[in-house]
Amino acid sequence: MSSNPLAPSAALVASVKSAAARPELFDTAAIQQMDSAHYMHPFTDSKALGEQGARVMVRGDGIYVWDSQGKKVLDGMSGLWCVNVGYGRTSISEAVYRQMETLPFYNSFFNTTNLPAVQLATKLCEISPSQFKHVFFTGSGSEGNDTNLRMVRRYWDLLGHKERHTVISRHNAYHGSTVAGASLGGMSGMHEQGGLPIPGIVHIGQPNYLESGRGMSEEEFGLKAASWLEDKILELGPDKVAAFIGEPVQGAGGVIIPPASYWPEIQRICDRYGVLLIADEVICGFGRLGKWFASELFGIKPDLITFAKGVTSGYVPLGGVLVGDRVADVLIEKGGDFNHGFTYSGHPVACAAALENIRIIEEEKLVERIADDTGPYLKQRFATLADHPLVGFADSCGFVAGLNLVRVKAAVVHDNVEFDPALAVGMVCRGYMFNNGMIMRAVGDRMIIAPPLVMTRAQIDEMVALIRHCLDLTHADVRERGWL
Amino acid sequence: MSSNPLAPSAALVASVKSAAARPELFDTAAIQQMDSAHYMHPFTDSKALGEQGARVMVRGDGIYVWDSQGKKVLDGMSGLWCVNVGYGRTSISEAVYRQMETLPFYNSFFNTTNLPAVQLATKLCEISPSQFKHVFFTGSGSEGNDTNLRMVRRYWDLLGHKERHTVISRHNAYHGSTVAGASLGGMSGMHEQGGLPIPGIVHIGQPNYLESGRGMSEEEFGLKAASWLEDKILELGPDKVAAFIGEPVQGAGGVIIPPASYWPEIQRICDRYGVLLIADEVICGFGRLGKWFASELFGIKPDLITFAKGVTSGYVPLGGVLVGDRVADVLIEKGGDFNHGFTYSGHPVACAAALENIRIIEEEKLVERIADDTGPYLKQRFATLADHPLVGFADSCGFVAGLNLVRVKAAVVHDNVEFDPALAVGMVCRGYMFNNGMIMRAVGDRMIIAPPLVMTRAQIDEMVALIRHCLDLTHADVRERGWL
Repeated sequence: MSSNPLAPSAALVASVKSAAARPELFDTAAIQQMDSAHYMHPFTDSKALGEQGARVMVRGDGIYVWDSQGKKVLDGMSGLWCVNVGYGRTSISEAVYRQMETLPFYNSFFNTTNLPAVQLATKLCEISPSQFKHVFFTGSGSEGNDTNLRMVRRYWDLLGHKERHTVISRHNAYHGSTVAGASLGGMSGMHEQGGLPIPGIVHIGQPNYLESGRGMSEEEFGLKAASWLEDKILELGPDKVAAFIGEPVQGAGGVIIPPASYWPEIQRICDRYGVLLIADEVICGFGRLGKWFASELFGIKPDLITFAKGVTSGYVPLGGVLVGDRVADVLIEKGGDFNHGFTYSGHPVACAAALENIRIIEEEKLVERIADDTGPYLKQRFATLADHPLVGFADSCGFVAGLNLVRVKAAVVHDNVEFDPALAVGMVCRGYMFNNGMIMRAVGDRMIIAPPLVMTRAQIDEMVALIRHCLDLTHADVRERGWL
Repeated sequence: MSSNPLAPSAALVASVKSAAARPELFDTAAIQQMDSAHYMHPFTDSKALGEQGARVMVRGDGIYVWDSQGKKVLDGMSGLWCVNVGYGRTSISEAVYRQMETLPFYNSFFNTTNLPAVQLATKLCEISPSQFKHVFFTGSGSEGNDTNLRMVRRYWDLLGHKERHTVISRHNAYHGSTVAGASLGGMSGMHEQGGLPIPGIVHIGQPNYLESGRGMSEEEFGLKAASWLEDKILELGPDKVAAFIGEPVQGAGGVIIPPASYWPEIQRICDRYGVLLIADEVICGFGRLGKWFASELFGIKPDLITFAKGVTSGYVPLGGVLVGDRVADVLIEKGGDFNHGFTYSGHPVACAAALENIRIIEEEKLVERIADDTGPYLKQRFATLADHPLVGFADSCGFVAGLNLVRVKAAVVHDNVEFDPALAVGMVCRGYMFNNGMIMRAVGDRMIIAPPLVMTRAQIDEMVALIRHCLDLTHADVRERGWL
């Protein structure tokens, strides 16, 4: 094997891969000690984690991951909403290896470019709605939303509307963790740390029917929730509002699937007042909802789309913004230098990973499968969980799904059916899930999933059975604790 | 070769690599057309670039890159201050390939971790100054500085000083392109676009002796420039100031090397008022100035260090913050959940690339070489350019260097010796450099380099000769235009 200097040492690769599958080779306690001593994790209480010890993930294949103790787990969260094509896709590793051997980095400043960036920009324009002919690359979704904020303000400045700088977002939205991203987001726990949000960003209510739809049909509530945007525009003055930003389906907020009436009404309001529409598709893009971009599913025509995660299936960090003609034409024709960008913008290795990832999605018809086959099947199977005594509501959209853990089952939404949040029943449930081989995320008492798009019908059955088993265990535990 | 499914296809790798070396295989005009049609470059006038056509970089090896027309260029900028170990390091490609085949992604939220992230955090604490025992990973230097801003404010909040939120930075500083990063930076061209800076960030003058040192010795000016920090702290009130942030040597501002008296005085002032000190070492770290971190060179003890670029030599996007004990102890012991972080925080593939990159730097003793061998040699050779009729000043520090193009050579600094900025002589010079096989960046009329750390003495000779040749061409051109 060593005769070709361009290929990695096969023996070494094989040894690493087999090592990853052999838990006896890992000293988990020692790794946990190093982890606690030196690695500050994102969104974590480091002290509590140090006392408990982190789970060490060492291997992934298909829809499964393994930890250092040999435990196999079904990854219902696709890493973190990103591993759309599943783990262990050798063709992406190969594409990355080839690019690294050829040109591992070059910048796109100073009138230079590189092939994978050009090819990926072209490909993204091909698979996205027709108003998108330009791409601005960043290193993450957060940086993509920073780009959006700078871009929409620049757009209005160039048109002579220098007061039109305010962006409207929603409570419980997630738009990243930079200072601007966290400000655009509507997470109160983030706003409490570090003096956020920054000025020029305001928030309206989210289209959460379960939380706020009492006494209305879903359709009525969708129109109502959209009307909050119009109210806010009129309150601020339309000549002050640069843009509205929203995730087609809120992800980190707990898989909040809006009523069908919501987005078309948002589009109508944006159109009426000339407000730019930004769709944050970091989670929803690249097939997750059965379309390349969820904007198509909901019938909206955004001016800007934020992307990340699924663009490379998370294999290499990459993000960016699809720039619609309305904005691109002004920036390009009137803008001169746009003084914004990142060292890693158009990173050739990240773009090479994305190109192969998209090729896989196309070849395996994953978008079509979510739309016509496994998406509807997941919907049907996941809905069966609604009969569980601990489950209030269970809904899905494409390959995101969520269910609410409730104290009292009730036919009517919004009755006093919830657990005391201080009990953290969701976290109890998450523990049973993990210990029994299932990764399901808890957002309060809402349990959510976003599985790899390669999941088969048989694997959906396996997952739903696992979830039901863990709900049973949680139910028994909660009853034993006297919380029911 | 195909007998091992874990190794990339050697035939394919070889064909790609040989293709990259054969310009007849690239249709440059077609690539440029796609580039212009779809790819919005960072910090670029897209319209002007479209009319001109981008240079398509297709291959790198050692300190050289090649474009699609077969032109070989000495990359004096290490990509963009990042390719410290040079291009074509197969062992990094292999490390990345192995990690992708094993575990291409996993998140570090929810009490999980991965081996490369733990190993890299441990390694970074080993090679950094002793006050650093913790690392927070991000995807870029920009995100690192957003992390710093959120972290220092959180630190003061936890200590009960909720008014202590202002960060002091410097004009002409560069701290990234997120909204917060660009605000921390002091680039007027960035502040003009998008309503920057955000509140709570103020700027003082930079320690630019050539620009502002008239009538003073370098030592006097260094103390003077540092005193601007004390003035600003007293103006704001020490109980309002969270931190001071600075690049040990300003990079994008034009390789501004501060007088030796500057940083120790800054440290004294920060200590006196209890102000946290953030060293942005995105450019200066990982051996560039002959130390693992430039803070050691300048004798300061920062509380936080931003890193990116050289940590992976740019092969895979990665950034982060070294968190000193003063901040880490408060965040960990008193902080509970730190509500901040990124999907790609602790990305296993990026961390694997960094580990191998650092191993190379250690094995090849690149830090020591810059300190004791090639750094001093570059200093000596680069200084010889000062006798050129077009060069006013030429200085270097480790492996960054810069020279000023001047209209009139003068023994005294600050005489009226500069070109009219509207003539953009720096851009003329940059053009001659590139067309003659040398990448040297222009910041106004200051020409700067930051070469790969693997550059040999012979290559330094080659580079300095190339620079002199291009200065001659620029000089002849400028004289012909009647600008002299």
